[in-house]
Amino acid sequence: MSTIGRRGIHYFQKLNSANVSAALLEKGQNRVIDASLTLIRERAKLKGELVRALGGAVASASLLGVPLGHNSSFLQGPAFAPPRIREAIWCDSTNSTTEEGKELNDPRVLTDVGDVPVQEIRDCGIDDYRLMNVISESVKLVMEEDPLRPLVLGGDHSISFPVIRAVSEKLGGPVDILHLDAHPDIYDAFEGNKYSHASSFARIMEGGYARRLLQVGIRSITAEGREQGKRFGVEQFEMRTFSKDRHFLENLKLGEGVKGVYVSIDLDSLDPAFAPGVSHIEPGGLSFRDILNILHNLQGDVVGGDVVELNPQRDTVDGMTAMVAAKLVRELTAKISK
Amino acid sequence: MSTIGRRGIHYFQKLNSANVSAALLEKGQNRVIDASLTLIRERAKLKGELVRALGGAVASASLLGVPLGHNSSFLQGPAFAPPRIREAIWCDSTNSTTEEGKELNDPRVLTDVGDVPVQEIRDCGIDDYRLMNVISESVKLVMEEDPLRPLVLGGDHSISFPVIRAVSEKLGGPVDILHLDAHPDIYDAFEGNKYSHASSFARIMEGGYARRLLQVGIRSITAEGREQGKRFGVEQFEMRTFSKDRHFLENLKLGEGVKGVYVSIDLDSLDPAFAPGVSHIEPGGLSFRDILNILHNLQGDVVGGDVVELNPQRDTVDGMTAMVAAKLVRELTAKISK
Amino acid sequence: MSTIGRRGIHYFQKLNSANVSAALLEKGQNRVIDASLTLIRERAKLKGELVRALGGAVASASLLGVPLGHNSSFLQGPAFAPPRIREAIWCDSTNSTTEEGKELNDPRVLTDVGDVPVQEIRDCGIDDYRLMNVISESVKLVMEEDPLRPLVLGGDHSISFPVIRAVSEKLGGPVDILHLDAHPDIYDAFEGNKYSHASSFARIMEGGYARRLLQVGIRSITAEGREQGKRFGVEQFEMRTFSKDRHFLENLKLGEGVKGVYVSIDLDSLDPAFAPGVSHIEPGGLSFRDILNILHNLQGDVVGGDVVELNPQRDTVDGMTAMVAAKLVRELTAKISK
Amino acid sequence: MSTIGRRGIHYFQKLNSANVSAALLEKGQNRVIDASLTLIRERAKLKGELVRALGGAVASASLLGVPLGHNSSFLQGPAFAPPRIREAIWCDSTNSTTEEGKELNDPRVLTDVGDVPVQEIRDCGIDDYRLMNVISESVKLVMEEDPLRPLVLGGDHSISFPVIRAVSEKLGGPVDILHLDAHPDIYDAFEGNKYSHASSFARIMEGGYARRLLQVGIRSITAEGREQGKRFGVEQFEMRTFSKDRHFLENLKLGEGVKGVYVSIDLDSLDPAFAPGVSHIEPGGLSFRDILNILHNLQGDVVGGDVVELNPQRDTVDGMTAMVAAKLVRELTAKISK
Amino acid sequence: MSTIGRRGIHYFQKLNSANVSAALLEKGQNRVIDASLTLIRERAKLKGELVRALGGAVASASLLGVPLGHNSSFLQGPAFAPPRIREAIWCDSTNSTTEEGKELNDPRVLTDVGDVPVQEIRDCGIDDYRLMNVISESVKLVMEEDPLRPLVLGGDHSISFPVIRAVSEKLGGPVDILHLDAHPDIYDAFEGNKYSHASSFARIMEGGYARRLLQVGIRSITAEGREQGKRFGVEQFEMRTFSKDRHFLENLKLGEGVKGVYVSIDLDSLDPAFAPGVSHIEPGGLSFRDILNILHNLQGDVVGGDVVELNPQRDTVDGMTAMVAAKLVRELTAKISK
Amino acid sequence: MSTIGRRGIHYFQKLNSANVSAALLEKGQNRVIDASLTLIRERAKLKGELVRALGGAVASASLLGVPLGHNSSFLQGPAFAPPRIREAIWCDSTNSTTEEGKELNDPRVLTDVGDVPVQEIRDCGIDDYRLMNVISESVKLVMEEDPLRPLVLGGDHSISFPVIRAVSEKLGGPVDILHLDAHPDIYDAFEGNKYSHASSFARIMEGGYARRLLQVGIRSITAEGREQGKRFGVEQFEMRTFSKDRHFLENLKLGEGVKGVYVSIDLDSLDPAFAPGVSHIEPGGLSFRDILNILHNLQGDVVGGDVVELNPQRDTVDGMTAMVAAKLVRELTAKISK
Repeated sequence: MSTIGRRGIHYFQKLNSANVSAALLEKGQNRVIDASLTLIRERAKLKGELVRALGGAVASASLLGVPLGHNSSFLQGPAFAPPRIREAIWCDSTNSTTEEGKELNDPRVLTDVGDVPVQEIRDCGIDDYRLMNVISESVKLVMEEDPLRPLVLGGDHSISFPVIRAVSEKLGGPVDILHLDAHPDIYDAFEGNKYSHASSFARIMEGGYARRLLQVGIRSITAEGREQGKRFGVEQFEMRTFSKDRHFLENLKLGEGVKGVYVSIDLDSLDPAFAPGVSHIEPGGLSFRDILNILHNLQGDVVGGDVVELNPQRDTVDGMTAMVAAKLVRELTAKISK
Repeated sequence: MSTIGRRGIHYFQKLNSANVSAALLEKGQNRVIDASLTLIRERAKLKGELVRALGGAVASASLLGVPLGHNSSFLQGPAFAPPRIREAIWCDSTNSTTEEGKELNDPRVLTDVGDVPVQEIRDCGIDDYRLMNVISESVKLVMEEDPLRPLVLGGDHSISFPVIRAVSEKLGGPVDILHLDAHPDIYDAFEGNKYSHASSFARIMEGGYARRLLQVGIRSITAEGREQGKRFGVEQFEMRTFSKDRHFLENLKLGEGVKGVYVSIDLDSLDPAFAPGVSHIEPGGLSFRDILNILHNLQGDVVGGDVVELNPQRDTVDGMTAMVAAKLVRELTAKISK
Repeated sequence: MSTIGRRGIHYFQKLNSANVSAALLEKGQNRVIDASLTLIRERAKLKGELVRALGGAVASASLLGVPLGHNSSFLQGPAFAPPRIREAIWCDSTNSTTEEGKELNDPRVLTDVGDVPVQEIRDCGIDDYRLMNVISESVKLVMEEDPLRPLVLGGDHSISFPVIRAVSEKLGGPVDILHLDAHPDIYDAFEGNKYSHASSFARIMEGGYARRLLQVGIRSITAEGREQGKRFGVEQFEMRTFSKDRHFLENLKLGEGVKGVYVSIDLDSLDPAFAPGVSHIEPGGLSFRDILNILHNLQGDVVGGDVVELNPQRDTVDGMTAMVAAKLVRELTAKISK
Repeated sequence: MSTIGRRGIHYFQKLNSANVSAALLEKGQNRVIDASLTLIRERAKLKGELVRALGGAVASASLLGVPLGHNSSFLQGPAFAPPRIREAIWCDSTNSTTEEGKELNDPRVLTDVGDVPVQEIRDCGIDDYRLMNVISESVKLVMEEDPLRPLVLGGDHSISFPVIRAVSEKLGGPVDILHLDAHPDIYDAFEGNKYSHASSFARIMEGGYARRLLQVGIRSITAEGREQGKRFGVEQFEMRTFSKDRHFLENLKLGEGVKGVYVSIDLDSLDPAFAPGVSHIEPGGLSFRDILNILHNLQGDVVGGDVVELNPQRDTVDGMTAMVAAKLVRELTAKISK
Repeated sequence: MSTIGRRGIHYFQKLNSANVSAALLEKGQNRVIDASLTLIRERAKLKGELVRALGGAVASASLLGVPLGHNSSFLQGPAFAPPRIREAIWCDSTNSTTEEGKELNDPRVLTDVGDVPVQEIRDCGIDDYRLMNVISESVKLVMEEDPLRPLVLGGDHSISFPVIRAVSEKLGGPVDILHLDAHPDIYDAFEGNKYSHASSFARIMEGGYARRLLQVGIRSITAEGREQGKRFGVEQFEMRTFSKDRHFLENLKLGEGVKGVYVSIDLDSLDPAFAPGVSHIEPGGLSFRDILNILHNLQGDVVGGDVVELNPQRDTVDGMTAMVAAKLVRELTAKISK
Repeated sequence: MSTIGRRGIHYFQKLNSANVSAALLEKGQNRVIDASLTLIRERAKLKGELVRALGGAVASASLLGVPLGHNSSFLQGPAFAPPRIREAIWCDSTNSTTEEGKELNDPRVLTDVGDVPVQEIRDCGIDDYRLMNVISESVKLVMEEDPLRPLVLGGDHSISFPVIRAVSEKLGGPVDILHLDAHPDIYDAFEGNKYSHASSFARIMEGGYARRLLQVGIRSITAEGREQGKRFGVEQFEMRTFSKDRHFLENLKLGEGVKGVYVSIDLDSLDPAFAPGVSHIEPGGLSFRDILNILHNLQGDVVGGDVVELNPQRDTVDGMTAMVAAKLVRELTAKISK
């Protein structure tokens, strides 16, 4: 349905075949990339200055939107997600207190540095290799501004690779990852795409960005998915055995001896009853409370996180899944900020 | 339902009342504004260079998204519109030829400089006065790149004021405006808001940016609306008499003796049967073909235009109104480019 | 889907067969009917006193809701319509001025006496014969309060019979009726039901309550419908010939020599593109503007009217058809009040 | 979206400022209130006589609808709920037996006294203080008719205050309350509104109408909510600890030593997966079976109850949440009647 | 979204590469094809016998469903259309009389021979060349049974090629075609597919099955579409000039000197306001009444017809577009039968 | 809403009363029945030959669609279900591996023999007695082709009677049945219909086709349902006690000493949160994972099964319930095939 993905690039391929010089193109593209990063830097800087001026925060969640949908294998609606999640976070139908009492209205708890201009970058003919670098750089610009920590709004799951790469590189070592998902996203490549949303965790494990990778909610996994899991030493918790694993998962202690914990939440880890607005409807998943029970009881220093794969084009008219995504962002914020 | 509007500002009011210095705030805000404009400039430059390199274009439509919804008096969904209109423009369900045979795939006909980062600017505590200036500056940056002409994707109708101001100032004189709308949008202020989407044409007429203003599709107008119309010499064509006015409107000749014609299309000029995805459902409007008949037969040099008030939160699940907005953008593109 | 219809009565039949005396039942039912009418009377009285106290009104539209859906042959959703139409009339998305400039906020133009408690009356085991009398009495109680004139919110179309009967009886003679509908509603009986929404105009013509009956928008009519039309001298304008009849219909002069004009608008006279929220989707109908053109140009003293057959259970999520119904009520109000 | 709330009153404020005497207004309003209560009385009387004539019932649930939505802080759709719940109770898609075998078709188990005419009362300019009294009086009129007990259909949650006040006053002492909700609704006032749906339980506790108040399903609570809870000795069971509290809650024994148990069910106590048609979507709630398990095992004399906050404007097209509300009403009926 | 298209074939390709003999496969496929045609034959025979036994019919419309969606270039939902159109034809919400008085309940006017088992044939690995032959043979089997004439329910528009081929071959010469569509469907091939729904009329013209081809409603046409039109002598009536062409089109006389008239209605000829449930939303189309005016006034012997491209997956929940398709089938039936 | 049910028969009753001989009718009907069965036979034969040629399969699931909806007491949408379930089984949004690792792409695991042409058979005036025989015969034709085992796609639940009858008769003795449902479907007759979807298990038990019948998920049951249960020795597991029964149900061992196990899954056994697209919304049901836990742990030789009561007309726009049905079919396939 969506053509966001295919468009950007072949538009510029046409230019290449015309009498437009490659040098002119590349120069212009670099100027656009530089300006994009400058804008992220300035917004992060302003927010960082404010949090520091207010004082007292050791760690502070800062939203960064990555409206990227073209690495999805099925639908590309997650490109529209970040503004919808933000709207839901501040929706008048609820208040600004998290379940355990953090006040989101306090900028020391939550700020926002806006979106990486993904669509514009692609429309300038910039390929995924460079785009992924822009995303990584953007995450690092946020982390530069102590005490800000990145809480990324997807986008499809392909964005977790550049984000976690940046977190690990910036912190100087691997992290432990708690990954909630219906799928392991660990194909070597999907339909030839190394940056596919079904391959991000293969990239992450190859890069050495994670020590432990715990995958929870898994219920759509192929032989390759299981083999790749073994190859990389992934701890895969399938839904088939969730009732047995539940006690273990509700008492996790992660991140010690490494640079901390990263939490990546794919909304399709939830049963579609709880999160219908996703591209890949896979019945038999977690309940919302299951996730909060795991999250609230998680021990460890959460250095970053993401909430991905909201597809607003499949959500209910009243945006129920956006509210679900927003509440996960809120509770992750409470976990990160201190 | 939406709280996009209220949020931005009072968040920073809170900061003001804390021990954060006003100077620090303003300096940071200025850096963010500068970086935002730099990014627009670089994207416009790249697109302009390409069109010029390809050669042969005298006038070329260039999309500029303005995702601003907070000046709406009812719903704020138009803030989500620009990416949805773009998706629909390139949707695989149709081809890239306009009704009269223009090829949209040709960059000399249509390019895109992306969105003004409206939400991020507001989230930095920047008020509407400065935001409106950023929008005007962005339009001028597009016009700087000959032969690009701005075709703006709203956003609510409040954006037409800064856009038309920029067009007129840049061209050095007034234009004629063809304005399709259910409402005259000419209140002096609406609920105290001078920048309301119901007041944009009052601002435009006061500023002297238009010689003639033709309003077509009008069917929700108060006594004040009629008085303001008279005061500013507006030519108001109400739906009540459309069957009589049709011949005149399908043979318009505008823009001679001034700097050209600007076309502003509010989607609620259409009957809600044709465009259900708008905030202000007002039965009894134009058919889609009525608008195309007016547009195709319009004689004049179209120097810019906008398509506003798409509210994706009220659209059908298959985005019918986004397709309607997209086709209006496509046909306007054909009118602008040469 | 709906069981509103069948329920009421057989519940009390069960009581009859138990050891509950018929006298006790009937006495209780009469007390409920009396109290229902007293409540309508008091509300009409209060509104009438106010309009008279304000002074200057010769005729003033007063809403009366009749939430009756059980005489529909297909779906019973119109029982839920009156509160939805009221909400749409006052919806913030539009203003309070009609197309020709009447101010609905002025109580001399529009008041509201609330709903006949149809569902409660039926739940007390009261049959349709007595219910129709309650509706007629309610209309007369409104008309008692000079200068109030009844503008009835349906409900299914069966309500037009008791309403028009009351109008004619109260005024002391027949009226002319402008009836917009996809169907003639003139079966002698439908599936044995004399009070069916498909038979109301047979009852009206038999009762001598109308001199002329003009039916506009007709496009679903059987042989019986045409024969009954001839039998009663009905002027049936079918959609097949609307383009030829349009001029005549846009220049109607009615009600002279009788007690005035009554306008009955079934929403399915509109094409379902304009009014999807109806029980009987019948493509090929009028546009909204077609109806307004007929209405605005109608000459005659409009003594009452109704807007019927809105089915909220089939409306779009944003209530587009409720908005359509509301605008028809608004424009009818302008026609009635003076 | 809805303007039900604001409208009623300021319409009459306008009258006050005109030359309409306050005495005339108040006299008319009092007549309307008296007639409204008379109508409730007569309906209750008829139903009471029937149940007594049939004999054998010690306690019998009787529905009373309170279509009030204007005290909601976000959306006002609950004003449309009572007729939708009734339709669902009798929907042909299910039978008339409750899970434990009660026959709802038996009038000794369930009768209906209809709705309090809330909208009409407000449209007569009557303020919330007097409206709340009308609601309380209506509940007492039901209780007057032995063995009827009130089972109230909301409406927003503000109605629980006048209902429980009436129950307690009529019985002559406090009750124990089982309150299922995502929110504690115990603000002292919300946005200045003492009658807000977010403040009803503050009013109830202040009035001394409850001995114990157990709140179950809580997951959106602010610091003030927790403080007010402590202040009034409320037993707050948060969802965070539901897996631990479950055993206790599935074995409740309440109401001994006081006048009985009142059960108030806010549909948003359910997770939005189970009840999407509510104004305040708050993920992480109870399952439908969780509620039934608590209810079926509750020991105590249930003297009244309510099911509130259904918002039909946010329900699925097939009315899933209305079916959920209806089943809760059915099972509560089984609990009350004996 | 749909994978109906790709699946069938490559499933059997896999078998080919396994140790399954090609002969075994082909023999089985032929048996399935023969049995499919036998079933169509027997159903047509039974219906033909009945109509002849009743006597008096010279020409009688007979429905044949072709649930084929895989030759669509965008969505494949039309594969689900035939049962939905049938349901709508007989829906209780309307009666069985056409606008001009034909009785559809009379089997001499309308019978039904059911569906070609398209999906099962494809699932047996049968390719499009043979499938198209099965469709042609099925049409001929209907025509064999005098006085039955085929009225085909699509499916996507690719089916018009095998249907019209069969009609022409069976009648022994070309027909005139009235083709209502937003697109000319006359590409030589679309994305390499000679059987694409965008190429059917190229196949028809190449085959010499039509003398005149009138295309009405065209508003999405490329340079190739216009060139192919000229090459084949097609009379293309574009929406741009419809107001001028209307008189001509409402007075058509076709089919004299050839074997009769065939009417092919693509639902996207209608504006999406009137027919939202189509795959290719193209604003600016015909109204439903426009089509009926053309059809009712068409002079000529209509020997067959089709209604195609209903996509139930994009229709409104109440199936408005299915009702539109059904009414077109009903009115076409009236045109065919005599 | 749907009229599929009533239509077929009375259409032919009309013929009977005309001058059409009963012999002619019956002969034609028999030819249609024979041809229908021949087509099923040929498709089953081809699929059987292929599976045998590939070798190695002992038991292999083969889909058979039965699009029958007219024996439903409420809505008839299940007649549209089989093609929607098939589409969902092969939807690109998921892969072809079951939770425990079976590959559905392997024809030895899953084939498809298409649909019984139920609608066409009924439209030929064939009554339910003969139709039920056609369904039974079709199932036997599948079982004829070793190693195929029938996995039936409903249709409403009335189809389980002819299917299980055929399985038992073909295998030569009773089976054990695991029946997941909100209702026991064991009325002697429902509204006089012996073939009602509410009576199928009464027919099955009377016929001696089952030794044990375990009903799981029950939560809508009348006194008659409980009595019939006792009469036939049915093991009814009600939702009220599911938390206690869970351990037993997750460790079932069935089918020993009889001909095997048959699994019949009515989608309304699931809570409507998990399966909204059903005709009978009955809150308080199983979660999707509850069913998989029972199914995955079931020990026994599964000789056949069905998934019934999907109503696509009540499903979400994205077909969530079709995905749920498809996953149940996939996991049942894994259970059957070996």
